[in-house]
Amino acid sequence: MTIPGQLNPSPRLLLGPGPSDAHPRVLSVMTTPLLGHLDPQFIEIMSETQEMLRQVFQTKNALTFPVSATGTAGMETCLVNLLEPGDKAVVGTIGYFGNRMVDIAGRTGADVTVLERPWGQVFEPDMIRDAVKRVKPKVLALVHAETSTGAMQPLEEIGAICRETGTLLVADCVTSLGCIPVKPDEWGIDAAFSCSQKGLSCPPGMAPVTFSERAVAALKARKTKVQSWYLDLTTIMGYWGGDRAYHHTAPITMVYAIREGLRLVLEEGLEARYARHVRNHLALKAGLTALGLAYTADPNHQLPQLNAVRLPDGVDDAAGRKRLLTEFGIEVGGGLGDLKGKAWRIGIMGQNSRPGCVYQVLTAVEQVLKGFGVKVEPGAGVGAAERAYSAA
Amino acid sequence: MTIPGQLNPSPRLLLGPGPSDAHPRVLSVMTTPLLGHLDPQFIEIMSETQEMLRQVFQTKNALTFPVSATGTAGMETCLVNLLEPGDKAVVGTIGYFGNRMVDIAGRTGADVTVLERPWGQVFEPDMIRDAVKRVKPKVLALVHAETSTGAMQPLEEIGAICRETGTLLVADCVTSLGCIPVKPDEWGIDAAFSCSQKGLSCPPGMAPVTFSERAVAALKARKTKVQSWYLDLTTIMGYWGGDRAYHHTAPITMVYAIREGLRLVLEEGLEARYARHVRNHLALKAGLTALGLAYTADPNHQLPQLNAVRLPDGVDDAAGRKRLLTEFGIEVGGGLGDLKGKAWRIGIMGQNSRPGCVYQVLTAVEQVLKGFGVKVEPGAGVGAAERAYSAA
Repeated sequence: MTIPGQLNPSPRLLLGPGPSDAHPRVLSVMTTPLLGHLDPQFIEIMSETQEMLRQVFQTKNALTFPVSATGTAGMETCLVNLLEPGDKAVVGTIGYFGNRMVDIAGRTGADVTVLERPWGQVFEPDMIRDAVKRVKPKVLALVHAETSTGAMQPLEEIGAICRETGTLLVADCVTSLGCIPVKPDEWGIDAAFSCSQKGLSCPPGMAPVTFSERAVAALKARKTKVQSWYLDLTTIMGYWGGDRAYHHTAPITMVYAIREGLRLVLEEGLEARYARHVRNHLALKAGLTALGLAYTADPNHQLPQLNAVRLPDGVDDAAGRKRLLTEFGIEVGGGLGDLKGKAWRIGIMGQNSRPGCVYQVLTAVEQVLKGFGVKVEPGAGVGAAERAYSAA
Repeated sequence: MTIPGQLNPSPRLLLGPGPSDAHPRVLSVMTTPLLGHLDPQFIEIMSETQEMLRQVFQTKNALTFPVSATGTAGMETCLVNLLEPGDKAVVGTIGYFGNRMVDIAGRTGADVTVLERPWGQVFEPDMIRDAVKRVKPKVLALVHAETSTGAMQPLEEIGAICRETGTLLVADCVTSLGCIPVKPDEWGIDAAFSCSQKGLSCPPGMAPVTFSERAVAALKARKTKVQSWYLDLTTIMGYWGGDRAYHHTAPITMVYAIREGLRLVLEEGLEARYARHVRNHLALKAGLTALGLAYTADPNHQLPQLNAVRLPDGVDDAAGRKRLLTEFGIEVGGGLGDLKGKAWRIGIMGQNSRPGCVYQVLTAVEQVLKGFGVKVEPGAGVGAAERAYSAA
């Protein structure tokens, strides 16, 4: 056979729903030679990573670590460890990723009740309370940051509702961790999962999770084995917990990467990081709005880091994204599910939440819209962003 | 909190059961900026990776790709996709990792028959034939290269036995791929799994798998959903197959890494690579034997890349390995299961199968043995290795 040539991808600016660009310091540490997964120095690196992850999750949970796979494996870890056949679960869906939780929860043999809101909307606490009181589930699973619509589900009041019925609250924080506040201890979240390639500016490949003491008690009280061996916390907690016993070989280089990503988050400081995401979002939003693009999510519950906007009439989704990619080197996401072909998802996450990215994407989008015959005042997007930055 | 300092591990030579050292070219490509997981250029990289993986697996199987997690997830992928509740499975154990397959197969709800051989031994074809004819299982799972003992299970005749009863043959090739011949098509293996961090000289984080047409037909004939969403091939084959539909976010950087690792394997050539592993093994074996260390596996079925040897009386396992690590920077593996505290496992895999590694580990082991009062003629190990290289 012909052996393919040296790796040589074109430069890209990743402003879709993820992966977002990895920070140069993260990429750089990935060349560090390997340690063994039971080396005392690697175990120290694991401990440091866990302690930093607790800071970023704002939690004291002992069982906090990155799962050795990408974000969806974090989702699966939370659900298959907390649910057994016959258990009751309530899963709320406000978009594509809620539906994924319904599917995964269903595969545990749990009795799943689905709560739905129209795409782009979020649940009011009373809607959740009614369902939880009616079903009395073991687990309630909600999406904190719905990547398909850009909607942010407030969770502050949900933990207290779950306490009334002894329900465990599982939260999908894939697109929120490192971008907006995520506070499992304060909000009463019992299991949260995220990913490495969005707010943490690492490559995809790890799924940070955190479990409360209540969740760990539920885990220890299981009557059946966890259906996944690879994701079985009853044994994994021996490796990421006190005795560091061999379970599976950890992805050493990805642990190096997430350790560096977490260092970057903590060097900046959580509050500064959240504020930066809001500031750049407001500028992007002003610009996109000036270009005539309407957000798909409820304006009272818009994620700063994920901006899903409807395409104007006459704009071809695939052709437009292709031009952004090939001519401007910018990746944005297409719509998923109900929004397929109708929306673009623009992510400014982690290190990509910065004015340079905002201006680049607004400039490129303006060009592409004009190419489809959309009437746009020249420089309208950039000008609006500039004014938003000045006003901030 | 105090933020941990810059990553700064000590130099190591990883001569345990894995991870083995990653090749510098592999580490280097990991700094390549990310592409999106649906970028046309990334899809081309996926295709190239799959085609090279087929060459290394010596297969024409369409469904050949790296699972987005470490080796055990490859094991789980093979078993949970091919087994459903009530199916019959026969799992052969010749060491630690066969037992892991028993556990994983059991979690599918399959009716699992366990065949056992003493640790270090392998199955004769007749033992397998008897069990398969008696049980008529849907799946027979065997370990090709048992990492806990260093034994190599011949598989050449097993595929034909499985055909007699319509049984699918699953093979654990975690420690064999890239080191010794693995020939799914020729041997009639229906599903094989491996890892990135041994014979392919990449960091851990991907699990190459390959499925025959028979296995794909069984997959398509399933009556129930695969219990793991993350590892569900019925949907993953949409991403790693023709339509490249989104399933989960692939670990981009790890795909870059394995692509480079596969290029290195093919540049060297499979036959040259296998011969190199044998040559260095014979030198290592001569040296270890001269130092008085006896192999734990049947001498007729010894893996070249994984050398498990019993410790002489008076040698403390943990203290000895600690000295190897801290004083010589060399990691070797301890014993697992029945061999815990009693054996060391020395891996010379991928790029670490070279004279420099053989001489280094023999020199260091000699020093450590002497430190425990074992009588060793000075330079005995290195001298024996030298003579073996000269004779080769």
